[in-house]
Amino acid sequence: MRTVEWDYNNDQVRMIDQRYLPGEFKIITYTDHRQVADGIRDMVVRGAPAIGAAAAFGMVLAAQTSKAKSSLEMQMDLIAAADVLQKARPTAANLNWALRRILKTAGGQFTNVEDLRKAVLSAAQQIADEDVAINQRMASHGAELIDDGDVILHHCNTGALATVDWGTALGVIRMAHEQGKQVHVLVDETRPRLQGTRLTAWELVRYGISYEIISDNAAGYFLHSGEVKKVFVGADRVAANGDVANKVGTYMLALAAHDNDVPFYPVVPTSTIDLSLAHGGLIPIEERDPSEVLNLQVDGKVIVPEGAKARNPAFDVTPNRLITGIVTEKGLLYPPFEQTLAKAVRDIEDILPSADQ
Amino acid sequence: MRTVEWDYNNDQVRMIDQRYLPGEFKIITYTDHRQVADGIRDMVVRGAPAIGAAAAFGMVLAAQTSKAKSSLEMQMDLIAAADVLQKARPTAANLNWALRRILKTAGGQFTNVEDLRKAVLSAAQQIADEDVAINQRMASHGAELIDDGDVILHHCNTGALATVDWGTALGVIRMAHEQGKQVHVLVDETRPRLQGTRLTAWELVRYGISYEIISDNAAGYFLHSGEVKKVFVGADRVAANGDVANKVGTYMLALAAHDNDVPFYPVVPTSTIDLSLAHGGLIPIEERDPSEVLNLQVDGKVIVPEGAKARNPAFDVTPNRLITGIVTEKGLLYPPFEQTLAKAVRDIEDILPSADQ
Repeated sequence: MRTVEWDYNNDQVRMIDQRYLPGEFKIITYTDHRQVADGIRDMVVRGAPAIGAAAAFGMVLAAQTSKAKSSLEMQMDLIAAADVLQKARPTAANLNWALRRILKTAGGQFTNVEDLRKAVLSAAQQIADEDVAINQRMASHGAELIDDGDVILHHCNTGALATVDWGTALGVIRMAHEQGKQVHVLVDETRPRLQGTRLTAWELVRYGISYEIISDNAAGYFLHSGEVKKVFVGADRVAANGDVANKVGTYMLALAAHDNDVPFYPVVPTSTIDLSLAHGGLIPIEERDPSEVLNLQVDGKVIVPEGAKARNPAFDVTPNRLITGIVTEKGLLYPPFEQTLAKAVRDIEDILPSADQ
Repeated sequence: MRTVEWDYNNDQVRMIDQRYLPGEFKIITYTDHRQVADGIRDMVVRGAPAIGAAAAFGMVLAAQTSKAKSSLEMQMDLIAAADVLQKARPTAANLNWALRRILKTAGGQFTNVEDLRKAVLSAAQQIADEDVAINQRMASHGAELIDDGDVILHHCNTGALATVDWGTALGVIRMAHEQGKQVHVLVDETRPRLQGTRLTAWELVRYGISYEIISDNAAGYFLHSGEVKKVFVGADRVAANGDVANKVGTYMLALAAHDNDVPFYPVVPTSTIDLSLAHGGLIPIEERDPSEVLNLQVDGKVIVPEGAKARNPAFDVTPNRLITGIVTEKGLLYPPFEQTLAKAVRDIEDILPSADQ
């Protein structure tokens, strides 16, 4: 199944509950958009593209549960629902992008509420289907950068689980593997949520791709040793100048790659690009609950002093000067990113009329 | 009690068993130098200066348990014991430094084995006592760098637990605190062994110093935000050119400090300086058991896929170009480190005749 999908038999949203992986593969279902917002906040579903699709299906639930008698009334309900959903997590551009796209569709003229409901479902389904197609296009472009025998460093989870299906950065690696190139992945464990250990390693096992987990601290060692040939990461929001907000730790990883002349590539659908922000300093960075840093045990033992406090920013910003190129579904973009990003987004808006309907 | 000390009542070595902190405060005792070597390897005791003192007391046990009838025979036993101890961990310079110093003392002329035993104990005790005095001198020098109100980023554990007593980098912070300066410490949790969470936070609570734990990944965020005013770290070996081997992750931390013009200071006794190695690329880097990366649980759940592999380098090398200054017991050293380090080590050999006896 997909990471997030519409269940046409039962009119509900279905997701893989990622909080239980890799120990248990659990499916969770939602019938209300407020539950979806909570699920996004609690990281049942995570990864910028998957969050976008989840929010879109959340809007379908809002249309479904709305008691509106007129399409105008329902449009007002949908705006309220979008507001609930957009507050679930602040950093990923795709959340807002998907909501805007659904609202655009819903903002048309409808003679009855059933037609509006159908239009919202169809738009959400299109977002989900496009995500898979876009990921595979990105993967084809990105795989050109990978040589047979490459050791690749990877941060967080950017695979099928971070998207509707296939993946962004991990999708690139998977494509290279399917093309018959031998690749080995050094998997940053990615504290504090450990998406590398919990999710990326789990996916790599399923794809039959060779990997080893490392502590995030060890990335610099392996970048300096010459073992790592390329770094591929995802992104939660890309500013107009190419600054990239991604899972916390990405900035130091990019510094270490740059210091050792190892190419560093974010892999992002154009829905992650936010041309409204001139630079990365303007991207809102979510600070999550300190318990995510403090809830560890080792060999069954608690290892945190009683009453310990923690800080927990979930993302950081990598400045464009550390980025070799950005892989998108429109192809590989290189500096000056101000120009190449703007052109890629414009082109997409030309070829995806659905976004403008 | 000290982190490692000689028990004069029972003729044994006594250490705080750091594997159980912060949950339990356990004392472990050793009567054989091979046990001490195992304890160093298993990280019952860790931190370069503490390892040096532990090895020195291990040599006292070797002298005590030796069945040699002549001092020449005992000297041969001591050389064999030093070989066992020096293989316990490869990176920290202090281990070898302490063993060489004990062997130098033991290499003199002794009319009987009892005198030799006493000389070895006296030399080991002197190493331990000097360590505390040296740490306090370093702390006084380093505390000059700290301003009232500073937020300081700290990696690994460099406190009393990493030394015989008082600490290196954490000793500097402690001294500033005792001088009445208000300081707040951001504590890198320091994966994979979590010395920050387990040991540094525990020490800071005892000293009454304000702190928050962060995931190692978050250091770049806080260095870029402008919150962090200085970074203080320890070191396991400093090469002649000022390249510093320290706990894995230090290199990326130094890159992020440098990228944001935040001063970065290793705090090291001169016993950590190895003038025999021209640069950091020559420092042997220990790779430890992958289980240290894979043995985590979160909320009681195992989070590692079955059969997962890991790599686990315990240290990395920070190039001298990223280092603002090195705090030693001889004062603050600045570039060019080739000259300032060599002078500091020479001066120490002049003022510490014990090392040449």
